[in-house]
Amino acid sequence: MRMYDVIMKKREGGELSREEINFFIQGYTKGDIPDYQVSALMMAIYFRGMNKRETADLTMAMVNSGQVMELASIDGKKVDKHSTGGVGDKTSLVLAAMVAAAGVPVAKMSGRGLGHTGGTIDKLESFPGFTVTMTPEKFLDNVREHGIAIGGQTSDLAPADKKLYALRDVTATVDNLSLIASSIMSKKIAGGADAIVLDVKTGSGAFMKELDSSFALAREMVDIGCNVGRETVAVVTDMDQPLGFAIGNILEVREAIETLRGNGPSDLTRLCMTLGSHMLVLGGLTSKIDEAWSVLEEIISSGKGLAKLKEFVKAQGGEPAPVDDPSLFPSARLIKDLPAVTSGYVKRIRADLIGKASLILGAGRETKESSIDLMVGMVLHKKIGDHVTKNECLATVYANDEKRMKETLPIIREAFCIVPEKVDPDILIKGIVDKNSEERFQ
Amino acid sequence: MRMYDVIMKKREGGELSREEINFFIQGYTKGDIPDYQVSALMMAIYFRGMNKRETADLTMAMVNSGQVMELASIDGKKVDKHSTGGVGDKTSLVLAAMVAAAGVPVAKMSGRGLGHTGGTIDKLESFPGFTVTMTPEKFLDNVREHGIAIGGQTSDLAPADKKLYALRDVTATVDNLSLIASSIMSKKIAGGADAIVLDVKTGSGAFMKELDSSFALAREMVDIGCNVGRETVAVVTDMDQPLGFAIGNILEVREAIETLRGNGPSDLTRLCMTLGSHMLVLGGLTSKIDEAWSVLEEIISSGKGLAKLKEFVKAQGGEPAPVDDPSLFPSARLIKDLPAVTSGYVKRIRADLIGKASLILGAGRETKESSIDLMVGMVLHKKIGDHVTKNECLATVYANDEKRMKETLPIIREAFCIVPEKVDPDILIKGIVDKNSEERFQ
Repeated sequence: MRMYDVIMKKREGGELSREEINFFIQGYTKGDIPDYQVSALMMAIYFRGMNKRETADLTMAMVNSGQVMELASIDGKKVDKHSTGGVGDKTSLVLAAMVAAAGVPVAKMSGRGLGHTGGTIDKLESFPGFTVTMTPEKFLDNVREHGIAIGGQTSDLAPADKKLYALRDVTATVDNLSLIASSIMSKKIAGGADAIVLDVKTGSGAFMKELDSSFALAREMVDIGCNVGRETVAVVTDMDQPLGFAIGNILEVREAIETLRGNGPSDLTRLCMTLGSHMLVLGGLTSKIDEAWSVLEEIISSGKGLAKLKEFVKAQGGEPAPVDDPSLFPSARLIKDLPAVTSGYVKRIRADLIGKASLILGAGRETKESSIDLMVGMVLHKKIGDHVTKNECLATVYANDEKRMKETLPIIREAFCIVPEKVDPDILIKGIVDKNSEERFQ
Repeated sequence: MRMYDVIMKKREGGELSREEINFFIQGYTKGDIPDYQVSALMMAIYFRGMNKRETADLTMAMVNSGQVMELASIDGKKVDKHSTGGVGDKTSLVLAAMVAAAGVPVAKMSGRGLGHTGGTIDKLESFPGFTVTMTPEKFLDNVREHGIAIGGQTSDLAPADKKLYALRDVTATVDNLSLIASSIMSKKIAGGADAIVLDVKTGSGAFMKELDSSFALAREMVDIGCNVGRETVAVVTDMDQPLGFAIGNILEVREAIETLRGNGPSDLTRLCMTLGSHMLVLGGLTSKIDEAWSVLEEIISSGKGLAKLKEFVKAQGGEPAPVDDPSLFPSARLIKDLPAVTSGYVKRIRADLIGKASLILGAGRETKESSIDLMVGMVLHKKIGDHVTKNECLATVYANDEKRMKETLPIIREAFCIVPEKVDPDILIKGIVDKNSEERFQ
């Protein structure tokens, strides 16, 4: 088999066989096939697309390009959750504790990543001493004993995806649904998931800005899951404003704790309940969503979720005391309220600008080498549809640097669009895509 | 400027500016822009195309990526000729002598190349001692003194084209008209041509198999020439059978000599007269094609063309005696006539199979490292439309190796398609494309 022929076949609109897909993924991972042939193929795929079978085969080829997490020794169906990424998204923290408390094992690989705030692991490091560094045996022991463990992503999981994504990123071949979907799904499957719940964000602050394309991506990923024997449900959710109120690592952990206590922002709570319910159903704990919802409500009201968070933090070497007393978390040196300059209703809160402000404050990484300031960020006080009175506080900003504070304030102000007429609140849950939903056959 | 943005713009169907084209060609030549970004761009160009302005700018960017032959010190317009390549094509040998004899300076860079026979330089090396190794000063002196010099292609001419072509060749991005046309034209212009006559082959033995696409390529190249100030005329000619009768290096030189003597095959003679007439007109020697035709007829009948060939071979160190007595050329050891097995009319002579046979005999290079056997090849005895009687000789094959001879005979036989019904001869000249022809505005 020659890579040239594979490129030519796709260029001419042909359907690549499983053998051809395995050939190029294996060859590329090993370094036998050069970047320049793969980037030409990616561009041909951009123009010609891939069908569902090709996309599923590509996903599994990437899964099999490296190590696959071996979780068979853990009883029960392992359900993983993935978000396509948004501003203020701390659902993983809440969900991990809630789902584990309900008895569905959480064995999750998580990344640090780049972006407006740190990743789940960075946020968890808000607890002094918390670590993801452990042997595979210790990881599995923790899941067995506590029902939960979160590890760092190793480069051995789906290395082909890592290499391919880096290449696509510099050759303008990222935005193809099959390629995006297979990239996400390959990492989850390599992480050992038996079933997957996806949070597909849509709106100005999301990777997919349009509702149509968000649903299409959701559909693509659900179909991959079903085609490779990993039941998958996707929830398409709003990212036209940040999720919850808090943005920044420690600030988000505090909001997650409040949510587990039953006092979280209503959008964040609703999203965690929705995603969590689907995780319980896929995990086989209940057969119906409303039953799962009740289970989770009890976990919140009884304090079992909060207790599970403490148990989990402690099991990975962290100091759990701030769970009960969040004032024990360190606070940023500079705190400033941003007052509204007019009265009216909040029409939009541009998540992209809020994310930019967060990055400037130092809450996220611009490059892999950047260090993160866990203390900084902001807490919004308004959501879309809320009334605002002149001089009322729109957001409280936490910084450790005067210059950055100064640079950030006008950006946050610009993010808020306030209009005189009444505005309806955003609809958080746009829809659910699963193996049975109608869109599957579109 | 970022290469990523250039790729994205073309991917989205945008028109690249001259600055963007210069940026990527310069960056690629210098090694600042990696292969994988350029191959992605080439694939995007394959799908989106380039307009006439972009194609002209790409051509000049490649011309300017290296050295440009400085021929200003030579009086008169320098007219170069290029063929897109066919089997049995020895027109360059005939044309160079004819045109130089007429007084239009020939200052030509030529390659060795890969293929069924050697390139023009290989063929000229049939004259013992002939060399293209000379200083630039000697090259120019020869043009001034003798009106003709042929040099070897240096890697300094249009290096961007060389690099780009090698990349396209392995990434399935060769067959795009703009890219093919700019590649050919950049080399000719870098070689110092003021005007260019193109022989665009069409048919089973040509790069372009269909008449439509051959005319489109001709149009593309003529437009580039006109857009960059190098008047260009393209003659679209038949390659559904080999040109002339001889295939193989020395065999072709002998046929070229016969043609200069006025005894050449009618198709070869006609093609040389046609291309040569356009060269004389572009060179400013006559204003009309029929006047130029008469000049060339006189050059043949008077022996001036033959004399010029001798003068030229001698000026570049070669032994010119075989021009007057071709029997002085060495001959292959094994000579075999291939008899027809049925009577009928020649319907086709597959140039691709004849080329393959020639390569097997050793007349051409399969890789850059292969050596060439100047003596081997074949002389056909029939053309399309000719009547054949059973046992009549179809071709005489010249080999230096029994095994190769044996392997070749059935291939040549397969190349001849003989049918019982009468067949019209092929039309050699399919059409002419110049700045005034109607297709220009299609």
